[in-house]
Amino acid sequence: MSDIEILFDKLWPLCRSITGNGLRRSFDILKEIIPLELREIPSGTKVFDWTIPDEWNIEEAYIIQPDGKKICDFKIHNLHLLNYSEPGEYMLHYEELVEHLHTLPEQPEAIPYVTSYYKRTWGFCMSYNDFLQLPKNGLFKIVIKGSLAPGALTYGQYLLKGETSEEILISTYLCHPSMANNELSGPLVTAFLYKRIAALKKRRYSYRFVCVPETIGTIAFLSSEGIDLMNKIVAGYVVTCVGDTGNFTYKSSKKENTLADRAAIHWLKHSGQKYALRKFSIGGSDERQYCSPGFDLPVGSLMRTPYQEYKAYHTSLDNKSFISFEAMEETINFYYKIVEILEVNHRPDRTLPFCEPQLGKYNLYSATGGNHQTDVEETRKLLHLLAFADGQKDLIEIAEARGQCALDYRGVLEKAWSA
Amino acid sequence: MSDIEILFDKLWPLCRSITGNGLRRSFDILKEIIPLELREIPSGTKVFDWTIPDEWNIEEAYIIQPDGKKICDFKIHNLHLLNYSEPGEYMLHYEELVEHLHTLPEQPEAIPYVTSYYKRTWGFCMSYNDFLQLPKNGLFKIVIKGSLAPGALTYGQYLLKGETSEEILISTYLCHPSMANNELSGPLVTAFLYKRIAALKKRRYSYRFVCVPETIGTIAFLSSEGIDLMNKIVAGYVVTCVGDTGNFTYKSSKKENTLADRAAIHWLKHSGQKYALRKFSIGGSDERQYCSPGFDLPVGSLMRTPYQEYKAYHTSLDNKSFISFEAMEETINFYYKIVEILEVNHRPDRTLPFCEPQLGKYNLYSATGGNHQTDVEETRKLLHLLAFADGQKDLIEIAEARGQCALDYRGVLEKAWSA
Amino acid sequence: MSDIEILFDKLWPLCRSITGNGLRRSFDILKEIIPLELREIPSGTKVFDWTIPDEWNIEEAYIIQPDGKKICDFKIHNLHLLNYSEPGEYMLHYEELVEHLHTLPEQPEAIPYVTSYYKRTWGFCMSYNDFLQLPKNGLFKIVIKGSLAPGALTYGQYLLKGETSEEILISTYLCHPSMANNELSGPLVTAFLYKRIAALKKRRYSYRFVCVPETIGTIAFLSSEGIDLMNKIVAGYVVTCVGDTGNFTYKSSKKENTLADRAAIHWLKHSGQKYALRKFSIGGSDERQYCSPGFDLPVGSLMRTPYQEYKAYHTSLDNKSFISFEAMEETINFYYKIVEILEVNHRPDRTLPFCEPQLGKYNLYSATGGNHQTDVEETRKLLHLLAFADGQKDLIEIAEARGQCALDYRGVLEKAWSA
Repeated sequence: MSDIEILFDKLWPLCRSITGNGLRRSFDILKEIIPLELREIPSGTKVFDWTIPDEWNIEEAYIIQPDGKKICDFKIHNLHLLNYSEPGEYMLHYEELVEHLHTLPEQPEAIPYVTSYYKRTWGFCMSYNDFLQLPKNGLFKIVIKGSLAPGALTYGQYLLKGETSEEILISTYLCHPSMANNELSGPLVTAFLYKRIAALKKRRYSYRFVCVPETIGTIAFLSSEGIDLMNKIVAGYVVTCVGDTGNFTYKSSKKENTLADRAAIHWLKHSGQKYALRKFSIGGSDERQYCSPGFDLPVGSLMRTPYQEYKAYHTSLDNKSFISFEAMEETINFYYKIVEILEVNHRPDRTLPFCEPQLGKYNLYSATGGNHQTDVEETRKLLHLLAFADGQKDLIEIAEARGQCALDYRGVLEKAWSA
Repeated sequence: MSDIEILFDKLWPLCRSITGNGLRRSFDILKEIIPLELREIPSGTKVFDWTIPDEWNIEEAYIIQPDGKKICDFKIHNLHLLNYSEPGEYMLHYEELVEHLHTLPEQPEAIPYVTSYYKRTWGFCMSYNDFLQLPKNGLFKIVIKGSLAPGALTYGQYLLKGETSEEILISTYLCHPSMANNELSGPLVTAFLYKRIAALKKRRYSYRFVCVPETIGTIAFLSSEGIDLMNKIVAGYVVTCVGDTGNFTYKSSKKENTLADRAAIHWLKHSGQKYALRKFSIGGSDERQYCSPGFDLPVGSLMRTPYQEYKAYHTSLDNKSFISFEAMEETINFYYKIVEILEVNHRPDRTLPFCEPQLGKYNLYSATGGNHQTDVEETRKLLHLLAFADGQKDLIEIAEARGQCALDYRGVLEKAWSA
Repeated sequence: MSDIEILFDKLWPLCRSITGNGLRRSFDILKEIIPLELREIPSGTKVFDWTIPDEWNIEEAYIIQPDGKKICDFKIHNLHLLNYSEPGEYMLHYEELVEHLHTLPEQPEAIPYVTSYYKRTWGFCMSYNDFLQLPKNGLFKIVIKGSLAPGALTYGQYLLKGETSEEILISTYLCHPSMANNELSGPLVTAFLYKRIAALKKRRYSYRFVCVPETIGTIAFLSSEGIDLMNKIVAGYVVTCVGDTGNFTYKSSKKENTLADRAAIHWLKHSGQKYALRKFSIGGSDERQYCSPGFDLPVGSLMRTPYQEYKAYHTSLDNKSFISFEAMEETINFYYKIVEILEVNHRPDRTLPFCEPQLGKYNLYSATGGNHQTDVEETRKLLHLLAFADGQKDLIEIAEARGQCALDYRGVLEKAWSA
């Protein structure tokens, strides 16, 4: 069993929400791989236009049918309880109960995922098939034990320092109960991507890994630290929906054509795989906050099948059998390639910019010319690099001018420097 | 009978030219709808490279055949007389007369429209069929009674004030004798478009309606007032050839991609109708003056079938049966839509630009999230607007980023402001 | 026999290299047509990253087979000797000799062209067919008489002065032994193009004709004079591979869309002939130096079939039968057309920029208007020119706005000036 799968199995059963102990325990598990530093933002704190809500913790929740059968047991599947349900106990007739039930008739096997963070209510979610089995007569006993009271919202981040204070942002979210692609694939890919980047001997950029409850957590993070980060972040990505076997999809930053977009698309183009490109739109995740007009950060999102485009999305069908750990490994590789492109990319500038250097002097050119000239591809790349290295064009642009990937120029960059 | 048709019937019989009493009477009739303020520019006045010519007024004009038959009677059709013919009386043989006759062999039923404003001469226009019936022997008596003498050129304009001094220019021309599409459709659409815009309770822009003899009148107008207007006019349109049932054609300003062009094309794109786009070219109307290098104003022209592209153009066949008053109503609606787009368009800027606002607080977002989320289209539009409202992009650009019309954002603009 | 062919026949037999008396004699022959001023750069001179090598002169070179037969005689074909072979005499066995022989098995009739300017060695080139006839036993006598010793590299240039000090660069190279398309077509076209341009009564631009040994000569030239020229050269072309009957190919400057590129592509587009466009790439000729980051000059190259894209390239098959003197004449015409475009091109600006001028006053417009209007094409061009002449757009851009060639506007430019 792979390390990712082991971590997945530990995280899966926990009931996460935008606050609470399930969230804290999930952070603790992730810290086995990535040394996230946690921060607690008290309930009631104003974060831009929003307010951190009370903290939600559930001990148990279920319904007892008139015939004594226990259904919708939170212990069996945490999706059964509407997330952020207010604790309470009730005795209700079928007609009253139904007002608090959520089903998905178009996917009759699936328990839907429903939340009510900012309006106090309670509810249960169940498959439409089970819903049809409910007895119509008698009283149902509803039990929701736990607390919804002042506490805190937890978020985590880690800054992996590089040679410069310019930062690459890798942001993912943690707030969904037991669902696999959206969301566990995001934190898992982020954690293991961290391991790969941390293992680099040399890093030009610093890497900021952010793991937050979606929307409110991102807003809390940006409210505390966003303004300071604005001039540091040169590229960033929201990691979400990266665990299925669908093709890669890149959603660009709102500004478009930022370094984040150029590096990601450059890799997709040269990866040899099919991929799709999307413009920024408000159907999405935390890039909505990063790209809001005040920040307008160069933050895109490399996904596989995007949210809302697969049927299992936000239901109990988004489970372990829906995802692939091999696909997650490949996603990590793709993100790592983008990181490599970002690291190698710069605006090369020649010390002596006039004419071509005499490569023969440095043993970089074949001695005999004319028809027999055995210009190897490496020599051509080197000449191409030297011709375009004007301190204006970056390596992505220079490589694209020959239809190649910037990573293919790592060898000749070293040669050019040594010459 | 519609108001437009009533006005058409009043204007139709008058013999207009670039000067004269037919032109003045036409202005008086238009003033029933639009309060044009008239200005008289005396003959001999220098206007840029041009000089206002003498004023032309005709009492009667005809030819008496050797057999006593009266033909080419100006009273029967004012196209029979070459516009700006010098008054005089002559007795001529067929061979001499023919030098002064104009026909259209390729359209043998049509009387052509011919002018000679700047070179003194005289002539008659007739159908080629009638021309073939002329007797070849005997003397023809030619009578042209009237005057071609110092007077004035008349033009009209009205400034409908709005909240700002920035102006939208609506320009049309009045100088053609009895022809329907080119030209009466232009002043008619302009006059009734004025009524629609005047009825608006609130106008951001001021609207300058200009009605001038084509070319020389526009040059006279620009010579008097053009330099002052240069910094006020933010968009403008020349209204011509708008009475037939052909598809809409938009001819862009010379600068291209001006606000005038963007608003007109934006509406055409979202109107659901077929349309054609043309670049600026010197085959055209008064945009030739507005877009001349010294002014280079953002002035385009929304037409239906353009001048010279329909056979009836500049002949007696361009008459009431050629045009459609329903088509003219639709043209007015199209221009009005463009006005609405101009009025709603601005560069929205958020007071609090960081992250998304909490729409739920303002009852602008459904309380329960997750799979059941009933994000209605209005909420999505609002979020889209708030995401793109960076004070740089205008509403046309913002709406286009979702493939929608700026007018569809009027509702959410109000919501966003009230929030 | 045409003048070009006469010159070709004189130049053909000489053994040129990047230095030496064959090169000097070739310059003397070219001076019959173009008054090149020669400059000698001593061996050992540093030119940017390079050093001028010793001068190479050969008296005789051949191989005597063991059976006494003389082969690979330099006097019979100067390609037989590897260019820049070090003088010497040897007695070698077949196995030793073979190390110094160059053939082209894929073109068994052809003697390949091989050089070794910067690494001292010697060699002979022969057809693969002849190579197969070599006896395997006995001793071969190798004779290479001449010198490889301090001397100088020769290059030539001529500045044909015009009204301004802005320069058009016409650069070609001279360093290949007996090969026809690459390279004699280049200096021949350049020399006769000079005659055409020198015959112009009036020239706005100065024309700098540069004839240099490829690469090292260009680097020597740029090292001496390049920095001073940087702000003078407004457009330039490398003339090479212009003697075959293939379609024209234009390789653009590295910057792209420079005046050089715009003028050349404008003519190709309006020439009525098929042509191909190429972006700058490092497979090429002296544009590699002109477009190096430090200079980045607006220098492209109009060729016919480019180097390396025809099989005869750099072999003995690139001879008189491969080229066409008619094709060279046509190439001269094409370059001359580009010169005419450069000369006529400017940013016209109207003295009186407001509205259209009254062309009728200048007899540039038909007196009668309306349907009979006989707007000739010349009048339309004039109006188009006057509409777009805003001092910003150049004539190429103005002509392209009507899909026409700038050269077609020469007539109306004169009319517009006289008006």
